[in-house]
Amino acid sequence: MTTAEQTYDVVVLGAGSTGENVADIAVRGGLSAVLVESELVGGECSYWACMPSKTLLRGSEALAAARAVSGAAAAVTGEQDVAATLARRDGFTSHWDDASQVSWVEGAGIALVRGHGRLAGEKRVVVTRADGSELVLVARHAVAVCTGSRAALPPVDGLPDVQPWTPREATSAKEAPRRLLVLGGGYVGCEMATAWQQLGSAVTLLQHGQQLLPHLEPAAGQAVEASLRALGVDVQLGTGVTAARRDGDEVVLVCDSGDEVRGDEVLVAAGREANSDDIGLDTVGLEPGGYLEVDESLQVPGVPWLYGVGDVNGRQLLTHMGKYQARQAGHAIVTRARGEQVDLADWSPSVATADRLATPSVVFTDPQVGAVGLTSAQAAEQGLPHRVVEYPIGDVAGASVFADGYTGTAIAVVDTEREVLLGVTFIGPGVAELLHSATIAVVGEVPISRLWHAVPSYPTISEVWLRLLETYRG
Amino acid sequence: MTTAEQTYDVVVLGAGSTGENVADIAVRGGLSAVLVESELVGGECSYWACMPSKTLLRGSEALAAARAVSGAAAAVTGEQDVAATLARRDGFTSHWDDASQVSWVEGAGIALVRGHGRLAGEKRVVVTRADGSELVLVARHAVAVCTGSRAALPPVDGLPDVQPWTPREATSAKEAPRRLLVLGGGYVGCEMATAWQQLGSAVTLLQHGQQLLPHLEPAAGQAVEASLRALGVDVQLGTGVTAARRDGDEVVLVCDSGDEVRGDEVLVAAGREANSDDIGLDTVGLEPGGYLEVDESLQVPGVPWLYGVGDVNGRQLLTHMGKYQARQAGHAIVTRARGEQVDLADWSPSVATADRLATPSVVFTDPQVGAVGLTSAQAAEQGLPHRVVEYPIGDVAGASVFADGYTGTAIAVVDTEREVLLGVTFIGPGVAELLHSATIAVVGEVPISRLWHAVPSYPTISEVWLRLLETYRG
Repeated sequence: MTTAEQTYDVVVLGAGSTGENVADIAVRGGLSAVLVESELVGGECSYWACMPSKTLLRGSEALAAARAVSGAAAAVTGEQDVAATLARRDGFTSHWDDASQVSWVEGAGIALVRGHGRLAGEKRVVVTRADGSELVLVARHAVAVCTGSRAALPPVDGLPDVQPWTPREATSAKEAPRRLLVLGGGYVGCEMATAWQQLGSAVTLLQHGQQLLPHLEPAAGQAVEASLRALGVDVQLGTGVTAARRDGDEVVLVCDSGDEVRGDEVLVAAGREANSDDIGLDTVGLEPGGYLEVDESLQVPGVPWLYGVGDVNGRQLLTHMGKYQARQAGHAIVTRARGEQVDLADWSPSVATADRLATPSVVFTDPQVGAVGLTSAQAAEQGLPHRVVEYPIGDVAGASVFADGYTGTAIAVVDTEREVLLGVTFIGPGVAELLHSATIAVVGEVPISRLWHAVPSYPTISEVWLRLLETYRG
Repeated sequence: MTTAEQTYDVVVLGAGSTGENVADIAVRGGLSAVLVESELVGGECSYWACMPSKTLLRGSEALAAARAVSGAAAAVTGEQDVAATLARRDGFTSHWDDASQVSWVEGAGIALVRGHGRLAGEKRVVVTRADGSELVLVARHAVAVCTGSRAALPPVDGLPDVQPWTPREATSAKEAPRRLLVLGGGYVGCEMATAWQQLGSAVTLLQHGQQLLPHLEPAAGQAVEASLRALGVDVQLGTGVTAARRDGDEVVLVCDSGDEVRGDEVLVAAGREANSDDIGLDTVGLEPGGYLEVDESLQVPGVPWLYGVGDVNGRQLLTHMGKYQARQAGHAIVTRARGEQVDLADWSPSVATADRLATPSVVFTDPQVGAVGLTSAQAAEQGLPHRVVEYPIGDVAGASVFADGYTGTAIAVVDTEREVLLGVTFIGPGVAELLHSATIAVVGEVPISRLWHAVPSYPTISEVWLRLLETYRG
């Protein structure tokens, strides 16, 4: 039996949102493209990450917002309907059915092959289908690896054997466990602790270091820690875990202090690792496993037809940054396919400059944390001339109208030489939509002198922008 | 008896937020300044406009947001406590007591004189105090007129005699009238109709033209009209009013069709007029009444020591723009007092360029409307090369997480020659904080090509930015 062979301009491994966007841009640029996917088209974000997690959080957030306004609070006399919230989540994940994504792919003129794809030498991908049959895909111009990442299990004795939840199980669970242990205090750990505590679980959050959300401004982790405790979460900082076991239905974690904590489920949210170990990287002279090294156009150095886009390159593990990289890489692929030179200067259409200078993220905890660009620690580390400006958001009229006793913080890191913003962090209820103002200011390198003309509407929380400028002026 | 005389560098007529800011900037610049105020220090916004109106609206908004999330909706089983909402409003207006504002003024090193101030020739202001005594204030450098505006009564027979509500009464009412008539469908009329209908009144809104919010994109007025109707407001478009009378306790309005509408109170929200008729403009060769003509540095042409700042100049009747003008005028006054030249180029620190190119406003109706810069009609009127791009916000994942059945529209007006944004309008629940992203983009003149690098966090409503860019790209 001969193996079938098909040729496309671009072969994309992985049909998550990143892969979909690479293929879409390629097709829009006049190229043909095929997506290879072994699981659900749409990927992690649609089914086991952003969408379900935010849906699990939104109901509690909306109720907290109403309870924070005297007058409105009187109307919130009942309890959240947890079953309805879980049903809403199921709707947002299309009940883990990818039919609508598949029809988007078809409508976009992209071919789709289901199966496990592996590189097989230069510009060749072999797909192994569920029935064991194989299909060879030949790429005229480029192969884009968009296989994403998966939850990493930390080296804790016995952990794999207790059948821990990864973010997948935490976002797709059919009911709230009575007691949930969360291992890891990054954004996934904090969001899921917030969600499930409010949906009825008694959550214990174990964090190795002394700070939650360690990659953000310290004030962010402190605010979220306080709110988790106020919600009733047992937050244990500075707590390493050395061993795990099942005791009947219970999960038991042994802490480095020797103490044991017990729960019904344990969510491991302690980092990610690249899906790069079984995609044939060795056939093109690359090391399997680990993040795929790429340049600013997402091209693999030394392998000009190969691109690594999204989580798999480890640059920024966020859905929206994967999609951004996809647009940039797609532009690079199309440009090079036309025989043209790609402009590698910062902020050009084929490079992912924002990965390095202006990555935004929102943590949907209560308070929310929105951050973009460099933190004060990163600015210091890079030796940039800078000043850090802080303002308590609760002192802004619009914030106090939004919620009684509003508590929050805005932190701006200003480049004192260029007089532009290097980074901004907003911590507080309802700041998620405020972040994009900072993202545009950082990306646009809008000078402080010009930002004075960007007048926030009164009375919105956005008025904190004026307060930050006034604080910087002194 | 001789009249006392005091000399300051800067004399400011009117201690609303605009006047306060002019004086503050002057003092920060090393000048002495005095505020003259005949009513409450803090002005319209603090007591009879922004703050109370937004407080009246916020409770209903928060409850609507919770009801729009299945799961959360189940918890909203009671009714808003209207008395608590009115009490909250009273707290935000400090029960119409200006003590805290006065102590801010004192702390800022600004003198305060209570009484009615009138110009009395060059650089002289005579203040008539409540006890009838007079004080002469002499300005070494500048007099800033910040007397604001007041509700204008349209020429309707008998209207003054029915004791209509102005926005002052509408924002400070101690209880919801059973039936409220609202004359005027601008932002005050729409906000107050939304507020009182939800606080228990049966509201009838009469609008002369065929469109609500006529100065904004037509889609804004259409969306607010639909929502007002859904709330139960009787919206009557194309309805002029020719006469008004009281019939017992009832207010009766006679429409130009001859029909009568009846209510318990009538709010007149049909425009504003400058507080310039009784401030001695004639003593310096200017016409009393009407808006005070000023240049880009808020200076009165031909009277170089005189400035008109805030509502009184009619440029933009918004609290935040008054404060913005105050900062710019304050800078101009300080610069000129130092004998230096003021830079009149666009976006300089002494000119109010945003008045013309980037004025933001938020209408706190349901849906909210946030708009900045030019509408498509204004761009066309000015003959600017432009393209209008629209996107339904409900198709953005973050919006559908925010509220079930989210409906909204984003409209961007792109300068096709310079490839920058001329204006942006967001219509939808929860867009108030989204607006500042557009304000920074417009003010910063951030090129479209750069905006592609400003990645919205997923899943936020801000992702509509990506959709607008994609729609523009085509």
